[in-house]
Amino acid sequence: MKLDKHSSIPLYAQLRELIVERISSGAYARGAQIPSEMEFCRELDLSRPTVRQAIAELVSDGVLEIHKGKGTYVAEEVERLEIPHFTALSFSFLNMNNVDNIGLKPIKLIEPDAEIDRLFKIAEKQTHPGYWLAEWPVNAGEQILGHCYSYIPVQLFPELGQSLAAGKRMVDIKSNKYAYLPQKGSLSLTCRPAKNREAEALDIPRRSFIIAMEGPLFARNGYICEVLRIILRPDLIKVEIN
Amino acid sequence: MKLDKHSSIPLYAQLRELIVERISSGAYARGAQIPSEMEFCRELDLSRPTVRQAIAELVSDGVLEIHKGKGTYVAEEVERLEIPHFTALSFSFLNMNNVDNIGLKPIKLIEPDAEIDRLFKIAEKQTHPGYWLAEWPVNAGEQILGHCYSYIPVQLFPELGQSLAAGKRMVDIKSNKYAYLPQKGSLSLTCRPAKNREAEALDIPRRSFIIAMEGPLFARNGYICEVLRIILRPDLIKVEIN
Repeated sequence: MKLDKHSSIPLYAQLRELIVERISSGAYARGAQIPSEMEFCRELDLSRPTVRQAIAELVSDGVLEIHKGKGTYVAEEVERLEIPHFTALSFSFLNMNNVDNIGLKPIKLIEPDAEIDRLFKIAEKQTHPGYWLAEWPVNAGEQILGHCYSYIPVQLFPELGQSLAAGKRMVDIKSNKYAYLPQKGSLSLTCRPAKNREAEALDIPRRSFIIAMEGPLFARNGYICEVLRIILRPDLIKVEIN
Repeated sequence: MKLDKHSSIPLYAQLRELIVERISSGAYARGAQIPSEMEFCRELDLSRPTVRQAIAELVSDGVLEIHKGKGTYVAEEVERLEIPHFTALSFSFLNMNNVDNIGLKPIKLIEPDAEIDRLFKIAEKQTHPGYWLAEWPVNAGEQILGHCYSYIPVQLFPELGQSLAAGKRMVDIKSNKYAYLPQKGSLSLTCRPAKNREAEALDIPRRSFIIAMEGPLFARNGYICEVLRIILRPDLIKVEIN
């Protein structure tokens, strides 16, 4: 990669990418010091503000780190945690056999709601007893990586809230419910700014971009038995798709 | 949802979400006019700058539209195009049987490169003849939704570039290559700011967030026969995962 002074892309943006390329190729090693601002100015015939802006952006991205009094270093890579073999069922609540250690919040009973009804393909104004909402974080140690919301129709699991509150085990709750458990699913994945309460759940600045997945899981009998909404921090997570 | 004047979330951000919720629930219909700034001030006991900021952000997000001299309207929803049943093989170049109408750029021969070698799990400094790079857009009509990059080892397909340039059909190119065609794959999906050349390919502002997927496809004989990099515009696309 060379810098092109006649390009419509500003020079600081070109330099930023040049530095990223040199890190990718190994020319600048992880954890090692990179040339000083003056050295970049000389090597590439750039002005000091141009070099400074490129470096400032990479520092704010976490690609570079300034060690005070020493210089600028390539940050040690924060490897994104990969969720292996991801499918629509990977985060199903009903498919879990043990929910003791997932950090589950108390199950809530949710009134029928137009937006969720739409996901359950429940016709507008159809009467039904609402949903259970199960909520739990996706963690690695203390670090919050994501958050899951699972809606389950009260019609299909009338006792779910009481049973879980009473400490009944999932395997027992599900023991006679084989036909109502998720067999396949369809999640829509996209990437969008977090809503306020999502940003709070993930402990990230408001409106940060998140990976958002949402959609129905289908039981063996064809019913939608669960609607999942999974939000993930894209700076910490990647999802393996096979 | 109610506004909470004692919350750490600023009131304009709360109002923004209240308006989004009212749109989701259908209280404010798509394409319909919403209350004026003064009406919001009165209904919710808010100051004019608070209301103005909430509305300004929703306008910049494309959720609301100001019709000059008329008022503020809910934007007609731009439905994200869904890529159905997405798998690691969905965008495989080698799996295509016809590449006449995909907008394929001329195939390029790429020198061995540390970053791509890593994806092919080729050991450092191992000598090999490089890769073919096939590049094509993901379009809906004139609209660019994404861009695909496929790297194919010259070792496995020595004639690919010449054959495609000569107008040979993919089915003929692949006719005796059954063992070298993708059978399964492993793409890492995440969401990150676009690099400059990616932003150019997608015709979006530099550093916009994109959905990025990257990883190897494996042939029946176990070789990595193709490495894919797919970048998508998250404001226009969602991906169905089963």
